[in-house]
Amino acid sequence: MTNTPNSAVLLFSCPDRAGLVSRLTHFIFERGGNIMDLDEHVSKDEGTFTARISWQMDNFSIAAEDLDDAIRPMAKEFNAQWKIHLSETLPRVAIFVSKFDHCLHDILWRYKAGELNCEIKMIISNHEDLKPLADFYKLPFHVFKITRETKKEQEARELALLKENEIDTIVLARYMQILSDDFCTHYPRQIINIHHSFLPAFIGGNPYKQAYMRGVKIIGATSHYVTKDLDEGPIIEQDVIRVSHKDSVKDMVRKGRDLERVVLARALKAHFEYRVMALNGRTIVFE
Amino acid sequence: MTNTPNSAVLLFSCPDRAGLVSRLTHFIFERGGNIMDLDEHVSKDEGTFTARISWQMDNFSIAAEDLDDAIRPMAKEFNAQWKIHLSETLPRVAIFVSKFDHCLHDILWRYKAGELNCEIKMIISNHEDLKPLADFYKLPFHVFKITRETKKEQEARELALLKENEIDTIVLARYMQILSDDFCTHYPRQIINIHHSFLPAFIGGNPYKQAYMRGVKIIGATSHYVTKDLDEGPIIEQDVIRVSHKDSVKDMVRKGRDLERVVLARALKAHFEYRVMALNGRTIVFE
Amino acid sequence: MTNTPNSAVLLFSCPDRAGLVSRLTHFIFERGGNIMDLDEHVSKDEGTFTARISWQMDNFSIAAEDLDDAIRPMAKEFNAQWKIHLSETLPRVAIFVSKFDHCLHDILWRYKAGELNCEIKMIISNHEDLKPLADFYKLPFHVFKITRETKKEQEARELALLKENEIDTIVLARYMQILSDDFCTHYPRQIINIHHSFLPAFIGGNPYKQAYMRGVKIIGATSHYVTKDLDEGPIIEQDVIRVSHKDSVKDMVRKGRDLERVVLARALKAHFEYRVMALNGRTIVFE
Amino acid sequence: MTNTPNSAVLLFSCPDRAGLVSRLTHFIFERGGNIMDLDEHVSKDEGTFTARISWQMDNFSIAAEDLDDAIRPMAKEFNAQWKIHLSETLPRVAIFVSKFDHCLHDILWRYKAGELNCEIKMIISNHEDLKPLADFYKLPFHVFKITRETKKEQEARELALLKENEIDTIVLARYMQILSDDFCTHYPRQIINIHHSFLPAFIGGNPYKQAYMRGVKIIGATSHYVTKDLDEGPIIEQDVIRVSHKDSVKDMVRKGRDLERVVLARALKAHFEYRVMALNGRTIVFE
Repeated sequence: MTNTPNSAVLLFSCPDRAGLVSRLTHFIFERGGNIMDLDEHVSKDEGTFTARISWQMDNFSIAAEDLDDAIRPMAKEFNAQWKIHLSETLPRVAIFVSKFDHCLHDILWRYKAGELNCEIKMIISNHEDLKPLADFYKLPFHVFKITRETKKEQEARELALLKENEIDTIVLARYMQILSDDFCTHYPRQIINIHHSFLPAFIGGNPYKQAYMRGVKIIGATSHYVTKDLDEGPIIEQDVIRVSHKDSVKDMVRKGRDLERVVLARALKAHFEYRVMALNGRTIVFE
Repeated sequence: MTNTPNSAVLLFSCPDRAGLVSRLTHFIFERGGNIMDLDEHVSKDEGTFTARISWQMDNFSIAAEDLDDAIRPMAKEFNAQWKIHLSETLPRVAIFVSKFDHCLHDILWRYKAGELNCEIKMIISNHEDLKPLADFYKLPFHVFKITRETKKEQEARELALLKENEIDTIVLARYMQILSDDFCTHYPRQIINIHHSFLPAFIGGNPYKQAYMRGVKIIGATSHYVTKDLDEGPIIEQDVIRVSHKDSVKDMVRKGRDLERVVLARALKAHFEYRVMALNGRTIVFE
Repeated sequence: MTNTPNSAVLLFSCPDRAGLVSRLTHFIFERGGNIMDLDEHVSKDEGTFTARISWQMDNFSIAAEDLDDAIRPMAKEFNAQWKIHLSETLPRVAIFVSKFDHCLHDILWRYKAGELNCEIKMIISNHEDLKPLADFYKLPFHVFKITRETKKEQEARELALLKENEIDTIVLARYMQILSDDFCTHYPRQIINIHHSFLPAFIGGNPYKQAYMRGVKIIGATSHYVTKDLDEGPIIEQDVIRVSHKDSVKDMVRKGRDLERVVLARALKAHFEYRVMALNGRTIVFE
Repeated sequence: MTNTPNSAVLLFSCPDRAGLVSRLTHFIFERGGNIMDLDEHVSKDEGTFTARISWQMDNFSIAAEDLDDAIRPMAKEFNAQWKIHLSETLPRVAIFVSKFDHCLHDILWRYKAGELNCEIKMIISNHEDLKPLADFYKLPFHVFKITRETKKEQEARELALLKENEIDTIVLARYMQILSDDFCTHYPRQIINIHHSFLPAFIGGNPYKQAYMRGVKIIGATSHYVTKDLDEGPIIEQDVIRVSHKDSVKDMVRKGRDLERVVLARALKAHFEYRVMALNGRTIVFE
């Protein structure tokens, strides 16, 4: 399910009407593209059409850098939200962490194993603790200590560093600081978080404690895009695990770690393969 | 995991202290009981001891009707919450339904298949619709139509019927009326409901619609004891199923039906085998 | 995910080459069809293209009865395996059962609830036991007792009855007789069975006993097309459930019943919505 | 669920008879032990009683080194298989690996996070590749290259090293060599393997390829004790994940990695907490 070399991926959503798939596929075929994968969905309730199409660019008559211009008229005609991605242009990623290491371990191992179609450019933390792990994987590690007083200023420095390195995607791998609204607006639909509960249950702090107190029999984890509204962004992936009365809060934290890392990994894999569209506060995740 | 013939089950919870298991098991052994199953749990965080012990009564030197009196002094000594059940005394059950038939179908089929250790004495509904199903299983079916004006009076008539038939357990199998607080107080920890969401997410009405709007990737169902606080009673069992952007609200309702019936069935099975203790708003479900 | 009224579904598989999706979608668009759902898959390892396309027939310029002839030339050009289905033509189904009732209960309840896009025309059994259930749902129930001596003759009578009623799909809902090879050849890829193990583990008789003896921690059920090779046909759907040392063989049988019925139901749902293609002894199940 | 400091764990299995739990718990209580956790199981089919009891040793009147002698007479009286473990004596572990790193990464991370009650003393491999990972965790890494000719001699050297370091538990974390029967006899029920299939399906080599060819809809992983019969040892833990026609063999390998590491981790956790008894080729895993 990884991207084919020298291929393009189009994510396209618009009001439904007859002939959309035909128009889109014909557009690609006429220009010499061989469609590798096409998945489309029509929501009858909402009257929207959404598609993900990937094709090989080898004999495509439009150059990669002209793709946007070529598609724009058709997108305008259909009043579409859309995005085009090229397999050769990998997302440039910064991972934000604090002291918990399980998600970072997992991401870096998968990255090295070739599971994630991206380039991890740096790790940013508000603590020194995880530097040895960054060193093991030979990745830059930057520390920006955050206090209430320095937050604004430090975020500005972080943003400068990110811009300088042309970072386009931020992963919050159990980063224990809340990003300011201002920071978030620089990366719309480009910041991915892992929340340690089955959202929308147990919003906010200490969700495992909340879960224990409510006596649920299943706990979960949720990966979502970060928006200004805390824990309210579009959900990309979720999963759950059983707990029982034998599990203390500490046991739930331990079981949850296994969930968090795998849920975040699946969300990242989908995002980096351009299989996610966020529409109306929800996501469509093509398989 | 069904109850052994002529056996007793003790559910026992008290502040933890040394020697509790030994005292309890010795008490049973000295009186000629053969312990079939023992499961105990000590919550260190809360300092409580909880146990479920079942034993054969064949050679037990205390008569079934004297069991309560025999155990009471020991329970008092340990300041315990406790309950004793006899395999020969089956719970007498009334099932409340409205128009949805999936949970009722499932319960009655399991009942006939011998999966549920109880006696289903009657089905009560606010509609006529499910009478043919009750007839198929040769069970009494009583209709109590409920309007805002008649609710109080009808509940009184229901209670009279329940008392007359010595009903001790009520199952709300997608019963679409909210029982009054007064009604509930007659059956503490004896009314079991199935809620069509993964509580505490999506409390209240139309949870599948809520789930759709939030864009969750997993939906659930929850079986719980009914208390005065709607959807807040101790949770007995939960389970979940994956959904995707391809699932409309209607699809979620359909998938949810499969969850609801199996979650309710598991909760009932545990309850009827005396494997559930409710403590501090949560349950311990012995396996 | 149910079929749209007055729609057609094309299942199409052929050696991969450029332009296939474009050709297929353009073919439909030019003739006035509005594509509702398209899912396609290219297996690079095997070099095959497979697609499922459904479209509305309301303004389609080709009549339903001429569809086969219209598509044949294109299918021949691409050397395709293919099938076209019309939402208005429901599969005509016979269900074979013996004494176990859980799968039959489940199928009939779902059928009545509108979950299965088919017409159940009759129930066939080698025993009288489940007649009351057929009566409840007002479905014909035919008994063909089978002994070693009468098998051939009885199968011939069954086939005659099936032909007479134009049955095109047979569901073995825990039917405890093995159909003869000859019988099977009359219904290629049209007989669906539920096997009570996670195939290919525990092929043959008494799989729960086998699972108990091996000490597995998970048991399963498998729904598959019936071929001449027992338990070797293409798998449509599988699912599993946890067991532990506490589960006796009898407990596994009980837990397995819940699996069997849901796995069979999912397989039937997919089959009746024309979402299954069997190729090379495996299936592609479009979602 | 981790072991309590200064506690003992007794695993005890014998033919069932009346009074066993009472005798065992009274034995502990009389000597001043406070039972923390007791789980017992009676298999009626096989007539066997099995229990796991853990208790605090703080005020126990028998010294740790005399425990075996104290329990032996009672075990003999009941004809029991049994083992006593002390929380203060951690298993001494060697991990065998080849080139795959996912299980080793996972074990070492969990070990450092305090999830595994053991002492990992060394990593043994037939290749150099994973040395940097051992270095990161500051663990000795020994290479024993194996060829058909040198196998016997190298195993002898390995055994000498293991004995010298008093290793009592061996973990095969995707070790790609088959241990000789002779080697295995030195560590009965003390070698734990992870097999990359849902045993007993797909025994032997290349199980993901086998699974792909059979067209299963679910793949699994199995952790088991190693016996002389390849892939036939008692199963400790299993888990599964869904696959579809979209998954190539390579995708299954990737998905399987996530399973393998978590299944092995759970098996190790249970083993190191003395929650596993192997009896008659199966295991009892106390929860």
